[in-house]
Amino acid sequence: MSASNHVNPLLYDDTRRSADALYFGGVSVPDPFVAFGAKGRKVAIVNALEFGRVKRESAFDRVLALESYLARARKLWPRRKIGIAEVVRLAARDFGVPAFTVPQDFPAGLYRRLSESGVKVRIADGPLFPEREIKSAREAAAVREGNRCSALGIAAAERMLRGARLRKGLLHHSGSVLTSERLKVAIETACIEAGALSAETIAAGGNQGCDPHHRGSGPLRVNELIVVDVFPRVSDTGYYGDMTRTFLRGRANDAQKALVAAVREAQTAALKTVRAGVDGREVHKQAVRVFETRGFVTRRTAKGSVGFFHGTGHGLGLDIHEPPRMNATVEYLLKEGSVVTVEPGLYYPGVGGCRIEDVVQVTRRAPRMLSDFHYNWELR
Amino acid sequence: MSASNHVNPLLYDDTRRSADALYFGGVSVPDPFVAFGAKGRKVAIVNALEFGRVKRESAFDRVLALESYLARARKLWPRRKIGIAEVVRLAARDFGVPAFTVPQDFPAGLYRRLSESGVKVRIADGPLFPEREIKSAREAAAVREGNRCSALGIAAAERMLRGARLRKGLLHHSGSVLTSERLKVAIETACIEAGALSAETIAAGGNQGCDPHHRGSGPLRVNELIVVDVFPRVSDTGYYGDMTRTFLRGRANDAQKALVAAVREAQTAALKTVRAGVDGREVHKQAVRVFETRGFVTRRTAKGSVGFFHGTGHGLGLDIHEPPRMNATVEYLLKEGSVVTVEPGLYYPGVGGCRIEDVVQVTRRAPRMLSDFHYNWELR
Repeated sequence: MSASNHVNPLLYDDTRRSADALYFGGVSVPDPFVAFGAKGRKVAIVNALEFGRVKRESAFDRVLALESYLARARKLWPRRKIGIAEVVRLAARDFGVPAFTVPQDFPAGLYRRLSESGVKVRIADGPLFPEREIKSAREAAAVREGNRCSALGIAAAERMLRGARLRKGLLHHSGSVLTSERLKVAIETACIEAGALSAETIAAGGNQGCDPHHRGSGPLRVNELIVVDVFPRVSDTGYYGDMTRTFLRGRANDAQKALVAAVREAQTAALKTVRAGVDGREVHKQAVRVFETRGFVTRRTAKGSVGFFHGTGHGLGLDIHEPPRMNATVEYLLKEGSVVTVEPGLYYPGVGGCRIEDVVQVTRRAPRMLSDFHYNWELR
Repeated sequence: MSASNHVNPLLYDDTRRSADALYFGGVSVPDPFVAFGAKGRKVAIVNALEFGRVKRESAFDRVLALESYLARARKLWPRRKIGIAEVVRLAARDFGVPAFTVPQDFPAGLYRRLSESGVKVRIADGPLFPEREIKSAREAAAVREGNRCSALGIAAAERMLRGARLRKGLLHHSGSVLTSERLKVAIETACIEAGALSAETIAAGGNQGCDPHHRGSGPLRVNELIVVDVFPRVSDTGYYGDMTRTFLRGRANDAQKALVAAVREAQTAALKTVRAGVDGREVHKQAVRVFETRGFVTRRTAKGSVGFFHGTGHGLGLDIHEPPRMNATVEYLLKEGSVVTVEPGLYYPGVGGCRIEDVVQVTRRAPRMLSDFHYNWELR
C-alpha cells in the first residue's frame, strides 16, 4: 500500500461501480470508460455521449474521443478484433506509459487481453489510491452531509413511529397498519428531499431485526425493537452517510432494556478507543469486552448467528464499505483523517436486534463526530 | 456465447455491482461473496452476517459458512496468507470442480491469485449467462413494473410542469422558481412511493438537454425543451425500468416542433423494425434514415457532438445497460424474448434536445410494448 501503487493508474469501469474512477476523475460516468494517469496527468477516453460533459466538469487534464482511438486502432491492426485493449495499447504508446497499475477489481477479461497484447499491467497489492482513506476537510464535510441526510431519514422514521396508534399489538398510521415498507418510503423520501439516494434502507422489527442485513417487511409491532439503518449517497458528491438507530414503540421489557444499554455502552467504549495508531482489532475488542462482561454470548446456530457477529466498523467515503476495517481478524492501524463507522450490535431472536451506528473521523485524540442524532429509543 | 459459457460459473462480487450474481442466486448480498455452480448445483459461501438470510431466501442449493472455509484453509496452509483464492481452491476440491468460468468483469486480483494457486479459471468470451438476455414472462413483467414506476415519475414531472406559472421567462411552482433539482425530487419521490429507486434521474432543459447524460440543474425556462429520463430499479426484484419523454412548457417554435416530430417518427420507424432475427444495426439505421431524410445532420464539434450521436437502444433487465445493443457499429441479431429500449434523440444547442424512449420485448412479429405513457409534449 505504498504511494507507488498508483504510478500510472489505469481504470476501466463506470463511476457507479467504481469509487476509484469517481475519485480519480471527479465526474460521474454511467458507462465503463478508460481513465489513466501518465506522468502525473489524468487522461480519460470517453465516447461521444460523455465527451462534452467530461471535458467541462471533470478533473481530467486530457479528455480524448474513444471513436478516434478505435478508428486509429482499426487502421493500425486491420486484421485484429479491435476493443478497449487496443485503445489502451495505443494510449500507452501516445503517452509513453511503460506500465499501468490497476485495482484489484479491474475486469479480468481486459486484464488478460492487455497482458496478451504486450501492455504491462501490474495489479495493486492494496487499494489503488491509498490516499482515499485519508479524508480532507472537504471530504469529511461531504460525509457529514451524507449523515445529515441519514439523520433526516431516521427522524422521519421516528416521527412516524411516534405518530402511530397502537391497536391489537400492531402499529397503525394514517388509518392503516404501519409496515417496514411504509417506514422505508418515509425515510427514503426524506433523503431524496435532502439531496441523497438511500438504497437498501433497513427498517426491520422483531426477529427480522436479528438479521443485520434483513431490510424488513410487513407489519411493525408494539413493544418490538426496530432497527433503522440508513446509508444514503449524496447525489452531488457521491459520498455516503451511514447511521443506525434502534427504536421501540410501546414499553420495553427488561431484556430489551439490557440489550440496548449494552450496545450503547459498547459503542461508547469503542468510540473512546478510536484514535490514530490504534489497531482496529483493539477497537472491536472493546465492544466485545462490554458484551462479554454483561453476559451476552455470541455463537453460531444452524439458522445463523446470535450475539455480536459483525465488525465494529468500516471506512466510509465514496464507497459504503472501504478501508479501514475494525473487526476481530484484520490488523489495521487507524490513521489520522480516516473516517469510520462505529456500530456494535446484538441480535437475539425472541428479544430482538439492536444496532447503534455513528460516524467519526480519526484524530490523534478523541475522534471527531461526523454524525448527530439523539439516542432516545423507547417511544412510549 | 455458447451455453457452455456457464459450465461451473464462478462469481465474486456483491449483487449491487454484479447483475450476474443477483441473477444466479436470486438474493441481494451487499458485500462481495463467493458463488459458483458445481454439477448444476448452485453454491454460495457467505459470512455470518449473510448466512441465515441467504439460506432462507436464495436460489442456492448449498449455503456454506465463509468462516469455516477460512479456518480450514488456515489449517491446511499454515504458512500462506489466506484469502478468498484459498477458499475457492478448497471449494473446488470439495465439490470436484475441475475448472471455473468467470465473467469478463471478474476481479483481476482474484483471477490472478486463483491462476497462481493452480485453480483452473476460464474467462467467458461473452456474457457469463447468455440466457439472461431472453426474458421469461415473469422477467418481462418485472421490467414492465419498472416502467410503471418510470411512468409515475414522468407523470409527476409533467404535473409539476403543467402546474407551473410562467414569470419572466422562468417556470415557478409553489411560490418559487422551478428547478431541475425540484423536478427530480418529485420524480424520485413518485418512484420511491411505487417501490423503486431512481438514481441519476435526468431532468435537463434547454442546452443542458443537448448533453444526453447531463442530469440537469438550475431554473427551468418557458418555451424550452426539457428531457425527462427516468430509469428506476424496482427494490423487490432488481429489474429496471427506463423511459424518456421530452416536454416543453409554453409554446414551441417551428424548429422545436420539427425536432420532436422527427424523433417520434424515428422511434416509430425503429420500433417497426424490431423483430427476432433482425440486426440491431438495421434498427438503428431506420432511425438514422428518418433524421437524414428530414435534414438533421450529425457531426462532432470541439465542444461535443450534435444531431443523433448515441445508439438507438440497449437491452434492459437486472442491468440498466445489457445485451443486446442497437447502434451503428455492433452486429447483434435480436432474439425472441429480448427486452430493449428504443430511444432515438436529437440534440442541437440553441434549439434543444429531445429523446423519446420506450421499452419493448422482441417477438417474431411486432414487438410487445413494456412501457406506457402518452406522447403529448407541448404543455401550453
